Amino acid sequence: MSIQNREVVLTGDRPTGPLHLGHYVGSLANRVALQEKYKQFVMLADAQALTDNYENPQRIREQVTQVVLDYLSVGLNPEKTTIFIQTSVPEIAELTVFFLNLVTVSRLQRNPTVKTEIGQKGFGLSIPAGFLMYPVSQAADITIFKARYVPVGEDQLPMIEQTNEIVRTFNRLYKTDVLREAEAIIPPIARLPGIDGAAKMSKTLGNAIYLSDQTDLIVKKVMSMYTDPNHTRVSDPGKVEGNPVFSYLDAFDPDKQEVARLKEQYQKGGLGDVVLKKRLIEVLEAFLSPIRERRKIYEADIPGAMEMVKRGCEEARTVAAHTMQQVRAAMSLDYFTS
Amino acid sequence: MSIQNREVVLTGDRPTGPLHLGHYVGSLANRVALQEKYKQFVMLADAQALTDNYENPQRIREQVTQVVLDYLSVGLNPEKTTIFIQTSVPEIAELTVFFLNLVTVSRLQRNPTVKTEIGQKGFGLSIPAGFLMYPVSQAADITIFKARYVPVGEDQLPMIEQTNEIVRTFNRLYKTDVLREAEAIIPPIARLPGIDGAAKMSKTLGNAIYLSDQTDLIVKKVMSMYTDPNHTRVSDPGKVEGNPVFSYLDAFDPDKQEVARLKEQYQKGGLGDVVLKKRLIEVLEAFLSPIRERRKIYEADIPGAMEMVKRGCEEARTVAAHTMQQVRAAMSLDYFTS
Repeated sequence: MSIQNREVVLTGDRPTGPLHLGHYVGSLANRVALQEKYKQFVMLADAQALTDNYENPQRIREQVTQVVLDYLSVGLNPEKTTIFIQTSVPEIAELTVFFLNLVTVSRLQRNPTVKTEIGQKGFGLSIPAGFLMYPVSQAADITIFKARYVPVGEDQLPMIEQTNEIVRTFNRLYKTDVLREAEAIIPPIARLPGIDGAAKMSKTLGNAIYLSDQTDLIVKKVMSMYTDPNHTRVSDPGKVEGNPVFSYLDAFDPDKQEVARLKEQYQKGGLGDVVLKKRLIEVLEAFLSPIRERRKIYEADIPGAMEMVKRGCEEARTVAAHTMQQVRAAMSLDYFTS
Repeated sequence: MSIQNREVVLTGDRPTGPLHLGHYVGSLANRVALQEKYKQFVMLADAQALTDNYENPQRIREQVTQVVLDYLSVGLNPEKTTIFIQTSVPEIAELTVFFLNLVTVSRLQRNPTVKTEIGQKGFGLSIPAGFLMYPVSQAADITIFKARYVPVGEDQLPMIEQTNEIVRTFNRLYKTDVLREAEAIIPPIARLPGIDGAAKMSKTLGNAIYLSDQTDLIVKKVMSMYTDPNHTRVSDPGKVEGNPVFSYLDAFDPDKQEVARLKEQYQKGGLGDVVLKKRLIEVLEAFLSPIRERRKIYEADIPGAMEMVKRGCEEARTVAAHTMQQVRAAMSLDYFTS
């Protein structure tokens, strides 16, 4: 593979479930654009998913295939984007182990993202060591590919900070510049609300519309969507803010003028939720139908899709192995090459 | 390589300095015997040495070569014993990362060996994550080679316990029996006192006689050895207990009868320290001279010695890679092989 002279972007997902519209708006759309400009690596972070799913690796395994289909169907192009599986690049684990010496336990315990997640996951005092360490593993993910940019949500900024701290420590201690600092790219629209009106669409909250949902399920989900609870009669004026139907139209309806008109009508009164929701169903169907068609093609040949991922893993390993050679040389651990 | 049907023994050293008589008595002699009966892996634990020497990897690098010369000169035979370098088997790091999910942070903080060492090393609250994790890395060292026996000192027993806990968790969670529990072998004579009479010979205490020490240095060290401080005149009765000169004679003098006679004479009075020490010098010279001769041969061809280690690393990787295949299959992470 040729890395060319393009800057590297690293991004990815924990393969813990199918991807939904929130993922599309928050990251997938961005990745489809980024692949035109950058050398993009998209990682299926199975090792990271295992840090809190270690009791059920089979589930992660199954979701890897589903997420691959999601990636391909939204238009990630394996010719432009290296899609790979984290555990298929064991060099990442190797670098993680070296990085663990450069971070103190108390520094990890202070990491705000990890702290929040430990609370959410209810680990109590039984925090798996792998979970506490995952920012170190992330630092290895990012630096082994010499990523310049990492698209993340605001809540992930401490991870980039931790990565850059490690990079600086490594380069200083081992008098080298093989590792580079990374910069966060915060995507413009970061968050899509759930169909229940919750601030965030999420698998765990059960309020998501998935990229792989079929028409009947889309209809069912949209028709049951939360709107303005005080908008009981068609003639009542309704609220646009905090109304997820409008958030989805903003995100997916290409006819911005029509969306503006609908908002105005809704706020005045005279636009019923059913009519509005039918419009959203049309918009989502128009958006999802090419995605579904591509998905159907890949689904018919899953071994072929996984073969593409295999090539991605090989490509990623080549880059990672090259960085590890440099890392080992910098650390004087290149016993048999010099 | 053929593993044959022999049980596997795993042992090794942190390459932080040259090996001394204490190492010989406590482990090397045992290893030279074990290689006749078992499939023995001896690991130069450079990754583990880095957990508290990460600021100076160059030193570890240099000591690796010295320890290899120590191994070969005492009679570890690369035809019988697989001598390898830990970081040259990256599969160990891979397994370590999976194992980190199976141990809680608080369990690691309770590990008595680690607790003691954290105190000794004066880390305070700034414990490198890699240091806290090193029992997990050790569990990977042991299990990746499916070691049945691990020769350790009493103080290392908690490490074996931690390893077996991880093995049981792994096999239970992933419904497998690929990993096996290990058993400690506590060597008969575990400890040689220092030349200063301290309970333990150690590089840090500066009270060691090294396997690579030359005659003039041996003479100097033995002549300055601590004996019975109340044994001031030749005619005085002297103490044998707590007198390191006698401990060394017990360990290295093949003529046990003569040692018994000397002890009797010393306790009665009439045996001077100088005469006694001259005897010890002779004994140590007789013990060290074949070691020195072998060392000279290997020193004359260090690239040749390192080539043997390279072959050991390849052998070790073959075994480790095979275990990792089984581990990945058990964890459903064998994406491209099934």
